[in-house]
Amino acid sequence: MTETTLPYNLKFIVRDYECDLQGVVNNANYLHYLEHSRHEFLISKGISFFKLHEEGLDLIVTRVEIDYKYPLRSRDEFTVTVNIQREGNARILFIQDIFRLPDQKLILKAKVTGIATRKGRPVPPGDLIPKLGLGS
Amino acid sequence: MTETTLPYNLKFIVRDYECDLQGVVNNANYLHYLEHSRHEFLISKGISFFKLHEEGLDLIVTRVEIDYKYPLRSRDEFTVTVNIQREGNARILFIQDIFRLPDQKLILKAKVTGIATRKGRPVPPGDLIPKLGLGS
Amino acid sequence: MTETTLPYNLKFIVRDYECDLQGVVNNANYLHYLEHSRHEFLISKGISFFKLHEEGLDLIVTRVEIDYKYPLRSRDEFTVTVNIQREGNARILFIQDIFRLPDQKLILKAKVTGIATRKGRPVPPGDLIPKLGLGS
Amino acid sequence: MTETTLPYNLKFIVRDYECDLQGVVNNANYLHYLEHSRHEFLISKGISFFKLHEEGLDLIVTRVEIDYKYPLRSRDEFTVTVNIQREGNARILFIQDIFRLPDQKLILKAKVTGIATRKGRPVPPGDLIPKLGLGS
Repeated sequence: MTETTLPYNLKFIVRDYECDLQGVVNNANYLHYLEHSRHEFLISKGISFFKLHEEGLDLIVTRVEIDYKYPLRSRDEFTVTVNIQREGNARILFIQDIFRLPDQKLILKAKVTGIATRKGRPVPPGDLIPKLGLGS
Repeated sequence: MTETTLPYNLKFIVRDYECDLQGVVNNANYLHYLEHSRHEFLISKGISFFKLHEEGLDLIVTRVEIDYKYPLRSRDEFTVTVNIQREGNARILFIQDIFRLPDQKLILKAKVTGIATRKGRPVPPGDLIPKLGLGS
Repeated sequence: MTETTLPYNLKFIVRDYECDLQGVVNNANYLHYLEHSRHEFLISKGISFFKLHEEGLDLIVTRVEIDYKYPLRSRDEFTVTVNIQREGNARILFIQDIFRLPDQKLILKAKVTGIATRKGRPVPPGDLIPKLGLGS
Repeated sequence: MTETTLPYNLKFIVRDYECDLQGVVNNANYLHYLEHSRHEFLISKGISFFKLHEEGLDLIVTRVEIDYKYPLRSRDEFTVTVNIQREGNARILFIQDIFRLPDQKLILKAKVTGIATRKGRPVPPGDLIPKLGLGS
């Protein structure tokens, strides 16, 4: 018997200040949506980006790949999905898509690579891995 | 004999991402311009907002008053002035204007009140006052 | 018989990217919260900031007064209230408070003055006034 | 005889509001730096992103790849380089690096793909290509 789980997703509405003079969401703001979704996803796994930082462990992004397919506009509703994969020993890959609601139009596809650091140096992700359900 | 000094000022150019769907700089971004100018003004007086934070002393804003007179647009050049006054024992008042360049058109007038805090509690500004040339 | 209505309010959660190096929400971001709440309030009255812009009518802010009482931090939930008053013939005053949830701690108090413009020139607010329930 | 030209570059200083609660520049803000540098690079070639938009031609980003190597902090000075290549008939590839100053430490490497659109549909880049010195 196979167990299927829907990917984590978080709903948003475009705020007018996120749009630029082209009348669409500015490219940089999609990184905000992706980051906020990752942090809320981590919270759903019992991991607080902010508390880890206060304890000296910083989760940082080392690579971002985004394919922009279609722009979001004022007050568009959309959902950001989060899927994760382990990549080598140190890296976690976040696969994230954005879909407009309710028509599920694909807005963008993103791959975001993250690592854990202490004082600016990479460290093994330790107990983050089992918390994320990525093995041990 | 009177001594007159020109107010501190810092030059900027509007970046396209700072404009919103009305095609003008979004209101919130003027607070960014005002903040950056205050922090650079403080640096010119030997005061680092960031280093003070690292030492546990946080300069925070308690009140902002802004009169928006005319909007800035894509690639407008402008200057932000900074003047200061002491207000009571604990507060410093920053009087800041923004002028478009080169025509000196008044863009906005702002009054920003700041205090010093430690662990969230107001503290006397101490040696910031003489550094700022505001007496002792 | 008196009719009482609760003020319009909109709920938010602080996103980590909205916090600055002091670990609290950056002052400029509160203007984003206030703006988004005003625009959603207008939508609740059948008025679209964005569609009005497309029709050549721009609602703009001419004055902002904010008293910052207490900072918001990572993942704090909060609500922004919107109350309106007419001010003279042309101006609408938005009275907006932010309260942290669930403890209702006052975060800030704001007064935001808005007018309607066409091609950069003030115009009477016209049918916006009855839509907003501010008389005729 | 070979002609060598130095890549276009634009200098910046990190503004405190661009740093997040980790005390470093937030990942999304690097997209702002990259975008502003591209737009100023275009201006240096006689191409205005904003004027093209007003004429109905929108330059949009379809793909971004960023490798984050090292973070920028409060008041770090840095330079953003811009190099371009043609990619197929419709696409222009911007190769952009960020270096901290004065030590030239590599901060990030980016590849940004752009196309021209009218009413949301891709169009040939037309006379942009010769203006950019990319042939005809």
